[in-house]
Amino acid sequence: MNRITSLFDIRYPLIQAGMIWCSGWKLASAVSNAGGLGLIGSGSMHPDLLREQVRKCKEATNNPFGVNIPLMYERNDEKFSILEAEGVNVIFTSAGNPAKWTQYLKDKGFTVVHVVANVKFALKCQDAGVDAIVAEGFEAGGHNGKEETTTMVLIPQIREMTDLPLIAAGGIASGRSMLAALVLGAEGVQVGSRFVATPESSAHSAFKQMILEAADGDTMLSLKRLGSVRLLKNKFYHEVRKLEDTGASAEELALLLGKGRAQKGMLEGDTVEGELEIGQVSGLIREMKPAGEIVEEIMKEFNEILDELTNLYFK
Amino acid sequence: MNRITSLFDIRYPLIQAGMIWCSGWKLASAVSNAGGLGLIGSGSMHPDLLREQVRKCKEATNNPFGVNIPLMYERNDEKFSILEAEGVNVIFTSAGNPAKWTQYLKDKGFTVVHVVANVKFALKCQDAGVDAIVAEGFEAGGHNGKEETTTMVLIPQIREMTDLPLIAAGGIASGRSMLAALVLGAEGVQVGSRFVATPESSAHSAFKQMILEAADGDTMLSLKRLGSVRLLKNKFYHEVRKLEDTGASAEELALLLGKGRAQKGMLEGDTVEGELEIGQVSGLIREMKPAGEIVEEIMKEFNEILDELTNLYFK
Repeated sequence: MNRITSLFDIRYPLIQAGMIWCSGWKLASAVSNAGGLGLIGSGSMHPDLLREQVRKCKEATNNPFGVNIPLMYERNDEKFSILEAEGVNVIFTSAGNPAKWTQYLKDKGFTVVHVVANVKFALKCQDAGVDAIVAEGFEAGGHNGKEETTTMVLIPQIREMTDLPLIAAGGIASGRSMLAALVLGAEGVQVGSRFVATPESSAHSAFKQMILEAADGDTMLSLKRLGSVRLLKNKFYHEVRKLEDTGASAEELALLLGKGRAQKGMLEGDTVEGELEIGQVSGLIREMKPAGEIVEEIMKEFNEILDELTNLYFK
Repeated sequence: MNRITSLFDIRYPLIQAGMIWCSGWKLASAVSNAGGLGLIGSGSMHPDLLREQVRKCKEATNNPFGVNIPLMYERNDEKFSILEAEGVNVIFTSAGNPAKWTQYLKDKGFTVVHVVANVKFALKCQDAGVDAIVAEGFEAGGHNGKEETTTMVLIPQIREMTDLPLIAAGGIASGRSMLAALVLGAEGVQVGSRFVATPESSAHSAFKQMILEAADGDTMLSLKRLGSVRLLKNKFYHEVRKLEDTGASAEELALLLGKGRAQKGMLEGDTVEGELEIGQVSGLIREMKPAGEIVEEIMKEFNEILDELTNLYFK
């Protein structure tokens, strides 16, 4: 037990990231049933769909689960009201300023966690009064920070400047990397990519297959002028890269990106023209497995490596 | 004791990176005297200067030390002959293909370690018959890989594909991060940036001061079209960035870079026009300290955190 397991009343300090097009009620409830904290990723959901997903999740698990709400989208207040009405009291906010909603949500009794990618926003989180911080390194999939600070460097930096409960994200997909994150100063981990390649994830099977086949160097932080996002390399990525290499403006990139690219790629399985958001750690993912088995496997490896460490003293 | 301490006959599996303009005999001998493995960085040295540095290092320590030889420079065979004649038997090669010199060096009785930044070159190292691999993540200072794989992801990937003794580099400057690297599967660490900010480093004091002042986001992987290198942000960096943002060619970047920029910045202290190579972890370095004290401090923290870990089981 530690501050993260206590905060959420869960068995393992292992959180499944809320991810657009990938983490609906099936994935979240599977992780929560296994003793982690599942998160419904609401970024791709209209309020009505979110309500439906939450209700299904409540039917599928008696354990705590939460919802991720990226603040860059609209109708956040409607989503908050739904969660309040449905009795979900854990919200992970991301992609925005924690000062905007944290006090509002705290007043309503929510446990509020905010996702950051740099030291500056970790400080804002502290000022805003969040209950915990997710610090996400450069290696993470999807949207990311312009500082490009890796998990190895970011976690000790944030640990040094705040006493808040700290969850590490980015590059974590095994018991080994979970333990490394805790050694660096985190008290829990948020795992995204590993849970995309599960039967319970709502990602398209063609996207899941690409994750299993991904190797070293197959993802890249891209679209930096629009807001950095880590993409799996496909035709769309190479088109982005080509434009960027010729000094394209944010407007030109936005025009290429258009609307609905992520849905096309991750949900609909157009792995050629779609936007495929995934972490560097996809290079270490080789097998589809049920989400609950992944939780068990990670915790088993975590404890085994902890056992072995007693031989590691250098005097 | 482990395979790394045995391989080099040292007390701690802690290697001080060989770095151009920064690590001469003073730094290398201080680290070796403290129980780590000091490396003379020969990349910036003519053969005659290397001979002088090696002789001084032998006078300053009775412990093993080594020499880093970046293969991209000329007169490598002269350098190898000098090391053979002087009885230095540990060579770290970098910035090149390990297939080129490893067998030649092994035949002469050297212990050969090669530095890589991706899985592909780790496999080449294994084929070439090196004694150990340094795997350097994206967060590391100086020259780096185009895959941009971070230490958190790179170490488990390489651990998985080879049984060779493995040294982690990139983002490591404390006992905490050293232990995290060993949890990830490494058996030793190579620390660079932390040792630049020491009295024994031959870097200019103005550069050292900038390292102490560096914060989150103050370094960036740059000059990707010439061969990626992590730079501290200064006027020169911003000029590079501006050119890159307009889609400049490798030739245009090479013209801006010119000759001797690194010497100008790191050795001569022109922190405005010079090229300043340093790691992301500079954001965690706040104090100048003698190199020997840093070794002691890292190992003390390493052992302390190892002690605390016994409370970390989640059942």
